Amino acid sequence: MADATLLPRITEAVDAVFEKQVAFLQDLVRFPSRRGEEAPLQDWMAREMARRGYAVDRFTLADVGLGGHEKGAPMVGVDPAGSVQVVAAHRASNPTGRSLILQGHIDVVPEGPADMWTHPPYAAVVRDGWLYGRGANDMKAGVSCMVYAMDALRAAGFDPAADVYLQTVTEEESTGNGALSTLLRGYRAEAVLIPEPTGHTLTRTHTGTLWFRLRVRGVPVHVAVAQDGTNAIMSAYHLIQALVEHTAKLNEAAATDSWYGEVRNPIKFNPGIIHGGDWASSTPAWCEVDCRIGLLPSMDVREAMAGVERAVKAAARSDNFLANNPPEVVWHGFQADGFVLEPGSEAEATLAAAHLAVHGTPMSERRTTAVNDTRYYGRYYDIPALCYGPKGDGNHGFDERTSLEDLRRCTVTMANFIAQWCGLIPR
Amino acid sequence: MADATLLPRITEAVDAVFEKQVAFLQDLVRFPSRRGEEAPLQDWMAREMARRGYAVDRFTLADVGLGGHEKGAPMVGVDPAGSVQVVAAHRASNPTGRSLILQGHIDVVPEGPADMWTHPPYAAVVRDGWLYGRGANDMKAGVSCMVYAMDALRAAGFDPAADVYLQTVTEEESTGNGALSTLLRGYRAEAVLIPEPTGHTLTRTHTGTLWFRLRVRGVPVHVAVAQDGTNAIMSAYHLIQALVEHTAKLNEAAATDSWYGEVRNPIKFNPGIIHGGDWASSTPAWCEVDCRIGLLPSMDVREAMAGVERAVKAAARSDNFLANNPPEVVWHGFQADGFVLEPGSEAEATLAAAHLAVHGTPMSERRTTAVNDTRYYGRYYDIPALCYGPKGDGNHGFDERTSLEDLRRCTVTMANFIAQWCGLIPR
Repeated sequence: MADATLLPRITEAVDAVFEKQVAFLQDLVRFPSRRGEEAPLQDWMAREMARRGYAVDRFTLADVGLGGHEKGAPMVGVDPAGSVQVVAAHRASNPTGRSLILQGHIDVVPEGPADMWTHPPYAAVVRDGWLYGRGANDMKAGVSCMVYAMDALRAAGFDPAADVYLQTVTEEESTGNGALSTLLRGYRAEAVLIPEPTGHTLTRTHTGTLWFRLRVRGVPVHVAVAQDGTNAIMSAYHLIQALVEHTAKLNEAAATDSWYGEVRNPIKFNPGIIHGGDWASSTPAWCEVDCRIGLLPSMDVREAMAGVERAVKAAARSDNFLANNPPEVVWHGFQADGFVLEPGSEAEATLAAAHLAVHGTPMSERRTTAVNDTRYYGRYYDIPALCYGPKGDGNHGFDERTSLEDLRRCTVTMANFIAQWCGLIPR
Repeated sequence: MADATLLPRITEAVDAVFEKQVAFLQDLVRFPSRRGEEAPLQDWMAREMARRGYAVDRFTLADVGLGGHEKGAPMVGVDPAGSVQVVAAHRASNPTGRSLILQGHIDVVPEGPADMWTHPPYAAVVRDGWLYGRGANDMKAGVSCMVYAMDALRAAGFDPAADVYLQTVTEEESTGNGALSTLLRGYRAEAVLIPEPTGHTLTRTHTGTLWFRLRVRGVPVHVAVAQDGTNAIMSAYHLIQALVEHTAKLNEAAATDSWYGEVRNPIKFNPGIIHGGDWASSTPAWCEVDCRIGLLPSMDVREAMAGVERAVKAAARSDNFLANNPPEVVWHGFQADGFVLEPGSEAEATLAAAHLAVHGTPMSERRTTAVNDTRYYGRYYDIPALCYGPKGDGNHGFDERTSLEDLRRCTVTMANFIAQWCGLIPR
């Protein structure tokens, strides 16, 4: 099926319904699918996939029992029974090609104050070749590529000659439990492609991520006698400073890492949420800080967690109050390994060829300092895991947007990849 | 009426119903009269006072129009129409003595996490001579003294020979607007006594207080590219540090103050509430910190406010991001002067004599680093303003409590003071 007429036929098929794809992406963006609120979008997606004739398996994290799995991460304040996953299966009647998982997460991070957006974050405004909105780029764009790449092959008169699973998952931004649940549910394939917005580059390696909550107490007193109490907000900053220093040391050591040695400060530490106290004239009795820290693929998750706990303990010992009232470190989300896609796989070679055919330039690679779901497939289940997708900016910020021309190209590339990897049979 | 039999008669009358007074104080404590939630307690108080035969004036802050008054402080997030004040008047039919205002605030500060209390904060548990609860000491104890001192005089067969106003007010802990509203409503007297829990000492002077909210913005980005964004939590800390330094300078200068020169660090700065960010893996886009700072009676409120603004601006200029995205300083509460009760008033001499008669030792005085409502009466309306009351601890903290034996003594002292200041006539 690699004849010279195929790519033009695929391209034509993508172009023919590109307006529909953009409208589909707008529909996706209009769902405010923040953590714990993804179910309505997943229900809609299940119906959309069923309408296309896929066999749809809709299940929740509660159905697969993540709790007992070594790589299941703790979920705090989110009900696993409400965290819906969707797997839409194309089952080849007489498979001759290589099977494939296409996976995208549909959870989005909070949009923050709406007044800091140029366009409302869930309005899915299209302007000057860009589609704006929370999740437009990270990664509902890629999800639309998955769906419309498959649509294009069909419109061109073909079906993949192997099983293809289109998976939309949750929890990518907080634990990774959505991806894990599809593997625990039993889905496997000879490759997986996750179209995160990589700007048409292949993700050679990603760092791991830990989430933790610092819980600091204080001795509340009337501010008039502040010297008799302690201030939990100031104590929290003492610990944050210690973690900034801990991170600096990790980054010094990272300079000799084989994958991240050339990346400046690849370990990122972020205090992302803070809440403390309830009265301006009382010294605050408590402060909680939700933090994120990275780790290199060469580092062990348990050791990285122990390092955070050691840093917090050492800082607490240097403070009179905290020494006797030790802060808690609560592990409330990501306990994610990093991952390296070892060069040389057939899957990578096939994607590189598909990219070259569409873009006319070789596929480049990136080393990212954020986590993604490929680790589950590649590191624990030995499935070649490609992270490659469309282009945009503003992920996790304001005015997030995805480029429509890049969306189109990515859809063509993905359809071309499916054709080459799975093979095609006439419908 | 200063004959030798009077004090024993008053004491006997206080003792006779002291169990009822404790039960009354328990009733007061059981109302969770946090800011904005005082109305049910004030309604109950109005009925209690009417039942005793007082003429009751119940009004709200909206009724008196604080907005136009120079000393009205901004209220953010609290409806003035829901902030109820109660004035219960004893009007002497043929006044021969000196008139008096007895004033107590019934707003309480938040109790914080209930699990950090030995007894539930609104259970009003009595144990080993103490009554526990939020507001038990600050200052519902004093309010019960006001009511039962008057009850004791009546039970002893007397009425004050002058007008006496029993006022229960709100907003003492946040703006002072409750006290101001009674003056704008028109209530005046020849002295005011506010039975804050001073441990039987006279408040010679109190510091002023400012409340402000720091509003800091940030540039949110995915933590993977944290270097491209800014972290509003860390920016807020930068400003807090600058205000700690500003406070240190103010305290250096305070060493020569005529009233506070001997008090170590009389200016207290407190970051009391903090909220920022919404996702551990996004650099936070905003952070808000509610702060309190003191000022000496010799300092001008406007100048103190300008000093805070200058310190914040200077700190912002030293930060690349903040220099171009200046933080806001929102004045959202107290803009309170300090106050000095000039020695030598007849009211003070009368209270000192009443104290000596009950305690057998001279009344001592204190210089407090917290604000109270006396400033309104003494500084703007020339009414001698005495702040003197019962004894306890844990104000604004956990396990707040008031001493019952001290409550009893304070009630006797207050009844004795009323008798001497207003004079008595047989009922």
